[in-house]
Amino acid sequence: MSSYDPSAVELLSFAKSLPDFLDGRDTPRAYLERCIETIETREPKVQAFSALNLHGARAAADAATDRYKAGQTLSPVDGMPVAIKDVFDTEDMRTTFNSDLFRDNQTAWDGACPYFFRRGGGVIIGKTVTTEFAFGTPGPTRNPWDTKRTPGGSSSGSGAAVGASMVPVAIGTQVRGSVLRPAAFNGTYALKPSKGAFNLLGGFPSALSMACIGLLSGTISDMWRTAWWLSQQGGEPGYPSITGKPDLPKSRKPKCLIRLDTAGWAETDEVTRAEFDRVCSLLAVRGVEIVSRSDDPDIQALESMLVELRNVIDFMLTYEGRWPLMMYADRSPESLGDRVAGRAHDAAEADPTRYAECLIWAEKARAQWDSFRGRADGFLTLNQTGAAPAGMPVGNTVYGEASSLIGMPALNLPLMAVEGMPLGLQMLGFYGDDEALTALGHWAIHAVLRGED
Amino acid sequence: MSSYDPSAVELLSFAKSLPDFLDGRDTPRAYLERCIETIETREPKVQAFSALNLHGARAAADAATDRYKAGQTLSPVDGMPVAIKDVFDTEDMRTTFNSDLFRDNQTAWDGACPYFFRRGGGVIIGKTVTTEFAFGTPGPTRNPWDTKRTPGGSSSGSGAAVGASMVPVAIGTQVRGSVLRPAAFNGTYALKPSKGAFNLLGGFPSALSMACIGLLSGTISDMWRTAWWLSQQGGEPGYPSITGKPDLPKSRKPKCLIRLDTAGWAETDEVTRAEFDRVCSLLAVRGVEIVSRSDDPDIQALESMLVELRNVIDFMLTYEGRWPLMMYADRSPESLGDRVAGRAHDAAEADPTRYAECLIWAEKARAQWDSFRGRADGFLTLNQTGAAPAGMPVGNTVYGEASSLIGMPALNLPLMAVEGMPLGLQMLGFYGDDEALTALGHWAIHAVLRGED
Repeated sequence: MSSYDPSAVELLSFAKSLPDFLDGRDTPRAYLERCIETIETREPKVQAFSALNLHGARAAADAATDRYKAGQTLSPVDGMPVAIKDVFDTEDMRTTFNSDLFRDNQTAWDGACPYFFRRGGGVIIGKTVTTEFAFGTPGPTRNPWDTKRTPGGSSSGSGAAVGASMVPVAIGTQVRGSVLRPAAFNGTYALKPSKGAFNLLGGFPSALSMACIGLLSGTISDMWRTAWWLSQQGGEPGYPSITGKPDLPKSRKPKCLIRLDTAGWAETDEVTRAEFDRVCSLLAVRGVEIVSRSDDPDIQALESMLVELRNVIDFMLTYEGRWPLMMYADRSPESLGDRVAGRAHDAAEADPTRYAECLIWAEKARAQWDSFRGRADGFLTLNQTGAAPAGMPVGNTVYGEASSLIGMPALNLPLMAVEGMPLGLQMLGFYGDDEALTALGHWAIHAVLRGED
Repeated sequence: MSSYDPSAVELLSFAKSLPDFLDGRDTPRAYLERCIETIETREPKVQAFSALNLHGARAAADAATDRYKAGQTLSPVDGMPVAIKDVFDTEDMRTTFNSDLFRDNQTAWDGACPYFFRRGGGVIIGKTVTTEFAFGTPGPTRNPWDTKRTPGGSSSGSGAAVGASMVPVAIGTQVRGSVLRPAAFNGTYALKPSKGAFNLLGGFPSALSMACIGLLSGTISDMWRTAWWLSQQGGEPGYPSITGKPDLPKSRKPKCLIRLDTAGWAETDEVTRAEFDRVCSLLAVRGVEIVSRSDDPDIQALESMLVELRNVIDFMLTYEGRWPLMMYADRSPESLGDRVAGRAHDAAEADPTRYAECLIWAEKARAQWDSFRGRADGFLTLNQTGAAPAGMPVGNTVYGEASSLIGMPALNLPLMAVEGMPLGLQMLGFYGDDEALTALGHWAIHAVLRGED
């Protein structure tokens, strides 16, 4: 049994090594070798990776080392080891989506995200295990804090690789919690950005109206640095990039935060609820006004919407899966896991009229969320209904759904513990305000872990 | 020299054969064989196809024939021969994007559009020639009405295949006129639907915030039948399907149409202008109020916006091409045509801040367009600045830009002629009102060609 202590844990930081790269005391190649050593030690049990390209990573790290020596780096992520969820095409590694249909799938080209990383000098070390098509059968990955437990999903390997200090940053994707939950279970920072902030083309076309790339990282600085830079390369077509600068936004103390239960509260165990209560109280003691449904009928209405949201997102996911899931089921039903086969089956009956109604519902939900702009700085809730469960269930999706459908940014802050395992605090903001949200998260770290402003 | 006469020309109709399929006087297989005969006769000069799968098409047509005999058809497009632009993945034919980089690109799966056609019993006969990545170097296709002239682009082969009566319906894609213009040059009907009405995933990810699938067809009935059915299968993620029924909406006479010059008028030759004037007068004589910029300062403001739109769309296209065009240019610059290489070069410098400004501009442009809802039934303009030019330029993009950026539906109606070649009338509507627009187009055919209401 793990005895995880969020105030004592220190995961990998890339930004911390930058001064050493610049003055030659350390190099990206040496940094990479330390990551590889950790992978060699921990990967046999954790199984975070579906593929590794150490040869390619070493070549990329050597090139970055030369650029730091010459003082000519390509970007704020130059030389950064990064792991990419196995749903994005990579020219040097297979892309399997953890599906039997794609075990040998080697593409000739990178998807947008791997390409943009390489362009900035990022060192892509491997592909991380996903659940089947990012929502179905789990892969073999285990939680590094207790390998009898799940790392969560669908970005299972990305969460575990960062939680095990194999890499400072990993890329995940989320529709209904697939970034936030593995981040929470593995004790990593995570940003699920404003809808469209990163370009997720070039891989599995999962529910694109709600899907997002998210970043999992050992520190909030690396999270922000990577987010800023990746977004500057161009987000999803039709969406603006996040604004700001590569360095972590200055810590900002919120005046008022809205505490949300969401549909998740009813499914959350008592110990986890108590830990969340404790942190909310702690923030209140530091002078943050924490308001909730009992304080304001508008918040009560928001909570009701968030409960209803479950059914809406469920139908939208099914409908948006008509292609390619029905195609896979037509040709090769025996190759699909139960959950994927079930969705393909339901998709065949999914009706465009109901989908159109869901779109209108979602538009109203966005406006309802946005009506709190100016009334509060952000929102607090949990990211998981309890500690990572034993065995291989990926965990309860419920706390991640709102941000994917509504499109506002969401953070996982690994500031709590339950059953000696990581417990994540979720902080949510307003669409387009990723930088402001990160500044609040920056403050919350110091407030919760060190009792400082 | 062609002496094209829009009132005398009759292209292929699929819907007309349906009663014969049902009572056994004709079969989908026999219909297909007639298409193949035309292809054998005309393809050597027209070169509309980049690939054909006659064996697969015959098998699909035989299966459809059996279904009609059994009275158990799959959809309103069951047995319909269709040609697919060579930008969509097809499991049975290569997908080349007319690029040297993809000459051998054989995917294992269909894109969404081919899959949905096959699911409805559609008979996919071949892939039609596109310009390089749907905006670059033209392919070998010639205009069937005069093979010394261009068929237009980028959906060159789709326009030519329908214009030459090789198929009743072909699939194209459009960002800045790539469906409407080849339709106009080849004398076919076309619908560029409301943004997102068809699912364009599974192929080249061209400027997805503006790109649309469009249909080119020999008759307006087949256009609508195909559009309705394809959209019911699920549109782009995040967008509703078009509403209505599979049968052509009843002809509806408009009370008021807004005549637009757009940025295209300045570049349009005198003969073409005169022909458009003639048709507008003819509609006015039939009692339709035709209003234009000189009648209403709001229309003048709309016209000004449409001129400014050119620069906005130009930048957005460049920006949205950062991935994958920069990636292609990095690895294999010698494989790219000049236009593609130029855009990849410009993309590297394209700035996310300006893109964010363009998105805001586009949002305002949509609202401005929509402010005419209720004040007019639709809009009229040209689709081309003159007859299809000789040689291989794809034609002037200008008349097609508005509908792709603003997202409203647009029709090409092949009701005019210039230099003995087809000249298209463009009719535009309001977002989501594809059915209403088609009803107006239906009326315009009778009004212009036969002087009837």
